Amino acid sequence: MDCYQHIGKYIGEIHRASCMYFGKKFSKFGIGAGQYLFLLNLYKNDGITQEELTEKVKLDKATTARAIKKLEDEGYVRRIKKESDRRAYKLELTEKAEQIKDDVYYIMNEWESKIRKCFTDAESQELMNLLNKLSKSSLINKEDVNE
Amino acid sequence: MDCYQHIGKYIGEIHRASCMYFGKKFSKFGIGAGQYLFLLNLYKNDGITQEELTEKVKLDKATTARAIKKLEDEGYVRRIKKESDRRAYKLELTEKAEQIKDDVYYIMNEWESKIRKCFTDAESQELMNLLNKLSKSSLINKEDVNE
Repeated sequence: MDCYQHIGKYIGEIHRASCMYFGKKFSKFGIGAGQYLFLLNLYKNDGITQEELTEKVKLDKATTARAIKKLEDEGYVRRIKKESDRRAYKLELTEKAEQIKDDVYYIMNEWESKIRKCFTDAESQELMNLLNKLSKSSLINKEDVNE
Repeated sequence: MDCYQHIGKYIGEIHRASCMYFGKKFSKFGIGAGQYLFLLNLYKNDGITQEELTEKVKLDKATTARAIKKLEDEGYVRRIKKESDRRAYKLELTEKAEQIKDDVYYIMNEWESKIRKCFTDAESQELMNLLNKLSKSSLINKEDVNE
């Protein structure tokens, strides 16, 4: 029975290796494996609310809240009360976050390059197509995952 | 620059969806997304030490310690001092852990089936081959990941 679970097991293994990699590489910035995903999303969507960020990363509210608290404590993010809705906060990146942006992208791309070195160009492309198909499926959408 | 990072991004997305899925499915057992991996490894290697478990999951000591603490608190694991080395603990599964074993494997296999439904049989096989190649590469070995 155990032998059946393969794709999920590989995805988990590869993900954990990436966490260890990013954890080490980002430690000099005071950023852990649990926070870089949120930082990356904020680089692309600076000024969004915490709720919108939770939607984007497809995780739960509590995980987003914990990650943002750490990024705030490290001086990368400011939470600002929205004028239109005093209960909502929008998230703004600080100058400190902008200063490390190139390094963050460099580290992400370095990991991607290392992955691709394990494959021929054709294999990389095939893997990307297959993962893209899975990623776009209803399975990876939060709403359908609890069926 | 951002557009370059694809395989890693997909792996992360799929992994997060699996965490949400397992988190919901395992919540009735008091097990979170951070613990089921350790429980699965103990089903296969009951009686190993905490250090050996850390090796197997390829994560750091602190993450293993946190997960085992939670599994212990929930009554799934007992830590027993080794007679040969009083500083080392071996980890033993409890009767409670044995009782949910079939359910745990059922949930894991259910997720795997859902993944495979997104693909033809040939595509599933191809994806498995590619992920297996990556998983077996030196990149996914802890020692080489910090180069």
